[in-house]
Amino acid sequence: MAIRPSGRAADQLRPVSFELGFSKYAEGSCLVKFGDTHVLCTATVEEKVPGWMRGSGAGWVTAEYGMLPRSTHDRMRREASSGKQSGRTQEIQRLIGRSLRAVTDLKAMGEIQVRVDCDVLQADGGTRTASITGSYVAMYAAFQKMVEAGKLAAIPMSDEVAAVSCGIYEGEAVLDLDYDEDSTAQADTNFVLTGKGGIVEIQGTAEEDPFSREQFIQLLDLAQKGISELSILQRKALGLE
Amino acid sequence: MAIRPSGRAADQLRPVSFELGFSKYAEGSCLVKFGDTHVLCTATVEEKVPGWMRGSGAGWVTAEYGMLPRSTHDRMRREASSGKQSGRTQEIQRLIGRSLRAVTDLKAMGEIQVRVDCDVLQADGGTRTASITGSYVAMYAAFQKMVEAGKLAAIPMSDEVAAVSCGIYEGEAVLDLDYDEDSTAQADTNFVLTGKGGIVEIQGTAEEDPFSREQFIQLLDLAQKGISELSILQRKALGLE
Amino acid sequence: MAIRPSGRAADQLRPVSFELGFSKYAEGSCLVKFGDTHVLCTATVEEKVPGWMRGSGAGWVTAEYGMLPRSTHDRMRREASSGKQSGRTQEIQRLIGRSLRAVTDLKAMGEIQVRVDCDVLQADGGTRTASITGSYVAMYAAFQKMVEAGKLAAIPMSDEVAAVSCGIYEGEAVLDLDYDEDSTAQADTNFVLTGKGGIVEIQGTAEEDPFSREQFIQLLDLAQKGISELSILQRKALGLE
Amino acid sequence: MAIRPSGRAADQLRPVSFELGFSKYAEGSCLVKFGDTHVLCTATVEEKVPGWMRGSGAGWVTAEYGMLPRSTHDRMRREASSGKQSGRTQEIQRLIGRSLRAVTDLKAMGEIQVRVDCDVLQADGGTRTASITGSYVAMYAAFQKMVEAGKLAAIPMSDEVAAVSCGIYEGEAVLDLDYDEDSTAQADTNFVLTGKGGIVEIQGTAEEDPFSREQFIQLLDLAQKGISELSILQRKALGLE
Amino acid sequence: MAIRPSGRAADQLRPVSFELGFSKYAEGSCLVKFGDTHVLCTATVEEKVPGWMRGSGAGWVTAEYGMLPRSTHDRMRREASSGKQSGRTQEIQRLIGRSLRAVTDLKAMGEIQVRVDCDVLQADGGTRTASITGSYVAMYAAFQKMVEAGKLAAIPMSDEVAAVSCGIYEGEAVLDLDYDEDSTAQADTNFVLTGKGGIVEIQGTAEEDPFSREQFIQLLDLAQKGISELSILQRKALGLE
Amino acid sequence: MAIRPSGRAADQLRPVSFELGFSKYAEGSCLVKFGDTHVLCTATVEEKVPGWMRGSGAGWVTAEYGMLPRSTHDRMRREASSGKQSGRTQEIQRLIGRSLRAVTDLKAMGEIQVRVDCDVLQADGGTRTASITGSYVAMYAAFQKMVEAGKLAAIPMSDEVAAVSCGIYEGEAVLDLDYDEDSTAQADTNFVLTGKGGIVEIQGTAEEDPFSREQFIQLLDLAQKGISELSILQRKALGLE
Repeated sequence: MAIRPSGRAADQLRPVSFELGFSKYAEGSCLVKFGDTHVLCTATVEEKVPGWMRGSGAGWVTAEYGMLPRSTHDRMRREASSGKQSGRTQEIQRLIGRSLRAVTDLKAMGEIQVRVDCDVLQADGGTRTASITGSYVAMYAAFQKMVEAGKLAAIPMSDEVAAVSCGIYEGEAVLDLDYDEDSTAQADTNFVLTGKGGIVEIQGTAEEDPFSREQFIQLLDLAQKGISELSILQRKALGLE
Repeated sequence: MAIRPSGRAADQLRPVSFELGFSKYAEGSCLVKFGDTHVLCTATVEEKVPGWMRGSGAGWVTAEYGMLPRSTHDRMRREASSGKQSGRTQEIQRLIGRSLRAVTDLKAMGEIQVRVDCDVLQADGGTRTASITGSYVAMYAAFQKMVEAGKLAAIPMSDEVAAVSCGIYEGEAVLDLDYDEDSTAQADTNFVLTGKGGIVEIQGTAEEDPFSREQFIQLLDLAQKGISELSILQRKALGLE
Repeated sequence: MAIRPSGRAADQLRPVSFELGFSKYAEGSCLVKFGDTHVLCTATVEEKVPGWMRGSGAGWVTAEYGMLPRSTHDRMRREASSGKQSGRTQEIQRLIGRSLRAVTDLKAMGEIQVRVDCDVLQADGGTRTASITGSYVAMYAAFQKMVEAGKLAAIPMSDEVAAVSCGIYEGEAVLDLDYDEDSTAQADTNFVLTGKGGIVEIQGTAEEDPFSREQFIQLLDLAQKGISELSILQRKALGLE
Repeated sequence: MAIRPSGRAADQLRPVSFELGFSKYAEGSCLVKFGDTHVLCTATVEEKVPGWMRGSGAGWVTAEYGMLPRSTHDRMRREASSGKQSGRTQEIQRLIGRSLRAVTDLKAMGEIQVRVDCDVLQADGGTRTASITGSYVAMYAAFQKMVEAGKLAAIPMSDEVAAVSCGIYEGEAVLDLDYDEDSTAQADTNFVLTGKGGIVEIQGTAEEDPFSREQFIQLLDLAQKGISELSILQRKALGLE
Repeated sequence: MAIRPSGRAADQLRPVSFELGFSKYAEGSCLVKFGDTHVLCTATVEEKVPGWMRGSGAGWVTAEYGMLPRSTHDRMRREASSGKQSGRTQEIQRLIGRSLRAVTDLKAMGEIQVRVDCDVLQADGGTRTASITGSYVAMYAAFQKMVEAGKLAAIPMSDEVAAVSCGIYEGEAVLDLDYDEDSTAQADTNFVLTGKGGIVEIQGTAEEDPFSREQFIQLLDLAQKGISELSILQRKALGLE
Repeated sequence: MAIRPSGRAADQLRPVSFELGFSKYAEGSCLVKFGDTHVLCTATVEEKVPGWMRGSGAGWVTAEYGMLPRSTHDRMRREASSGKQSGRTQEIQRLIGRSLRAVTDLKAMGEIQVRVDCDVLQADGGTRTASITGSYVAMYAAFQKMVEAGKLAAIPMSDEVAAVSCGIYEGEAVLDLDYDEDSTAQADTNFVLTGKGGIVEIQGTAEEDPFSREQFIQLLDLAQKGISELSILQRKALGLE
């Protein structure tokens, strides 16, 4: 059996924590940690929706993602300075938005918009999956506040949503890749699932050689196990369990 | 059983064709058609690799993707005019590049770069999967020319690569979505597989409601069937069968 | 007498053809070929005019131009990727728009806008003149459709418009330069004329040495001959002759 | 006979003057005035040529053009602030560069580059033609300085170059349009000619209705007269006559 | 005592002049010269205010700043061509705007906007301070015209505003640095003061070593002397004294 | 006497803290808090200097600044998304860089570059002064590490540098403005001083009415007191006292 650099078992998540209310101003916020990957997620509630939705009676959820320049081992160029967001950044923020919308009842929100910002303070692999997992918590907290204030009758979300990456590391399927594993994995797949196990997104990529159907099923099994654990942690952090 | 708008069976591809040598200048070129989706794929061979690869002895494959403004039902804004490529465009061109590299032996290429351009002349769903499938043919044709000219000892590709989208349309898993299906599908998944059935990329997205593990397996089955057919068509177009 | 690389007589056009309806979606479309120069021209009809024209009762015609990266002998950089349109591109698309407006009765159009897109699939010299000549056909076809649908009482165009380049090649005035001639010509002049012989635009440039008044008059003579031939071909393509 | 708003005869230039050495730092400079059109032209000599010319032994001439925001009747947006140069600006600066290169012996220059800047301080029609006419003077002055300093054996220019616009104003061909004429002219043609009468560039545009061959010849006649006068003024300003 | 390169006394301004009405079109304009530093300042009056001020009943003053590429000893890159304004440019134009607003009664203006453009024709140090000093004159002149036309009851400015730089040159505090001094000064401080001596802005920067409180007070003393002289020159130029 | 919203005395700083080593990867890092203003400062050491310094033997220090979108009461637009850094951002990052260089011995550094990143996690006024104060600590920590590793003989900094803002709040001079004070202050001045009291930068701005020389001296007095306290806190945080 391959020994993971971190000593974790193949199906073991990194230590995961959620620090709610990290930001003084945001309607909902959460500093999520998956081991050494730390992402600050804030949810901002705005009273107006994008132009193309006005008058529809429904709301919208959108997300932006960024990495601090020195969140990584070597400093990255600041995207605000280079004048554009990379293709990778755009891919990730589109993914976060889709994932959150998949469990949100946009009609029940009414014509408001939630803008989620995921800013990576420190990156050790899995920043997009941590972002999705933390954003759900930040957004739920914002909705809780709105329910308490009488602005919403109920939380307009149908289920939890969380994400985790799985991959083939030294020939073995493992859960929740950290940077050391990610950089040498033969396959890297991000799974976004709901608390009840529904599939929201799957993004799988073979790094050098294609992988097999059997390997893929193993990764899916690991993801389902990991996400059921993450869902429990999300509910605990939100005081629901 | 749901009747597909096109009258196709659930596991039936659209008519697929490859017109090799569509472009007079490109080292390899191919106009690929998946029904009314038409993509011009060209492969340009350059004698130099990106700066970060120089001296490595290995080659590189990269791809760009674009849609003509009136390739679509309503005219889209020209990206050259708006001054940037959309997040969707960047996602797709990154995907095409990764897919081609997955079956290419970069070391065997030597220090050359192949630039693939996929330009959508007409779009009726599945432009990214048609692009990958056609690009493989264009690139292979460019390599054939190099082998004939004595610049390469052998074609530096280990297998075919092709792609197809599958989705849940009116509750049923169907192969090769066209635009009418795509715009109302409950799930849309793009599969990039090799001729031998290896998985290169999977990108699955639930449109409104999450989908189940069982549904996903059905989509994978359809994709494997469809891509084995596409591989045969690719080989025929290249005169290999 | 100089022998043209193509073997054509000094006053001979390349083979010219128009393939109407090349695009499934556009209100009018045409793949125009001047020899190996192939341009896809589409005309999109929009129900609204630019902001500065609203309420004027008149319509507008505008054009955009692009080259596929590998339409040329060596691959060009994709303008969408470099983030801006070159000065040359902007010059050409402004020229196409002015040329079409010169024969269009904007008031008779009513408050609609026609957006013409000229995308060069293959370039062998004269892409801007082919674009103008083909755009006229695509736009006329779009107007025909509107007349048939009862949205316009008559085609709001007063005359044909077509364009051709002439130049001094090895000391002799020749009609319709192809790339081999263009790249070594002493003078290169683009003429945009109406079917009745009216002058819409003249753009003449001496490449190294200035040219004389007499030479210029010879080029004008050739252009008038060539464009009267092109007008006939345009009418035939449109089923008007 | 139409009376021009300015009271000038049909073949009469505006008062033209050249103030050499307007700029303290530039190698050559000239404030050129065509009536109320005032353009500051500077010629900067740089010891190095663009990358694609290095080692060729030849030099290069390039030009940039700009308008101060309040050079015009109504304030224009500052191009540095809007983040790009308009298509019109790019057209003009490409024209200025080509015009100057047409009378310059690039090989005789050696590997240096002259950068010409034309900045419009006040605009009353004909800014591009004034820019070309003044740039010639600024560039010649810079070459004079280099000859005096022993850096060049002789002025590497074969002839004067100057430019003027002609148009059809109220049915009559007139020379050197000012803004009042330009904004209502039926045709507007810019001529760039050499002192000896050679044609460098012709850019003619019909504003609403096409114009005839006969009208065009009249404009050419006026231009030849006007430019022979401008050439004399250029030589006088440079102390050559 | 250190001898200034220009031979001026430590507390002596360069020759300062204002040429009103330099621009034919602008509501107010002024070519200000501080020695060899020449800045063209224009004030444009617009009937509408920025969106965020509409309905407030108050006006706004804003400024833009630019340098002609060859206003400097070596040619600078044209900002319109590089596609953005430098940080320095933005700093300066924000400073000019704030300085003018500090002496303007925005409410008394009514809902109009004054756009000030400062374009440096020649730079020999102190372009930002000359810009502020000249802009005041241009703006005042524009207001005079409005009062004469009955559009304003009175000039809505409470005081003059002018600016000057002071620095430590070879150990001594000196007034109104020119380029030779500025490039070697140990400290460079820009003061924006009103005619009555009020402080509007102070921007002091130590170049290499920090400077002392005592030195700073000396610079402030020089600035107060210089600006009282500039205020008198401003009033004279405007015919108020 | 005016009562400050926070209840602080006029010459009282907010609670200030420095959390060193906040970032796992950066050579030096510090989360600095001035009350509710929280800035993450990282110092990255790079082995190469900017092109214009190569071969000089000296090093360089540069800084970048950013605010997380929801660091503020209302969400700000993400600069990476809008495609450029605002003028304010550029002003601030230039100021931070100059301030750090003023106390750094660039020659003693050798040819390395320190890149400081200041990212505001939460903003309650004074983000630029907190950034400077925290950056000094992060940079010093990076140098300590280099000294320990034998890469530098000694810390190449001559003094502490710290910054604080002072202003006139309800008529009274107060130290270290928070957001409530800042938004209504009559004057706002940022002071950057060294531990020994030398002046590095002064940026003073009158908000509506000019302020007097006497008021300015009061602000300077407060700043000197405040910065002497900050210097002690910096030394303590670095274990030097």
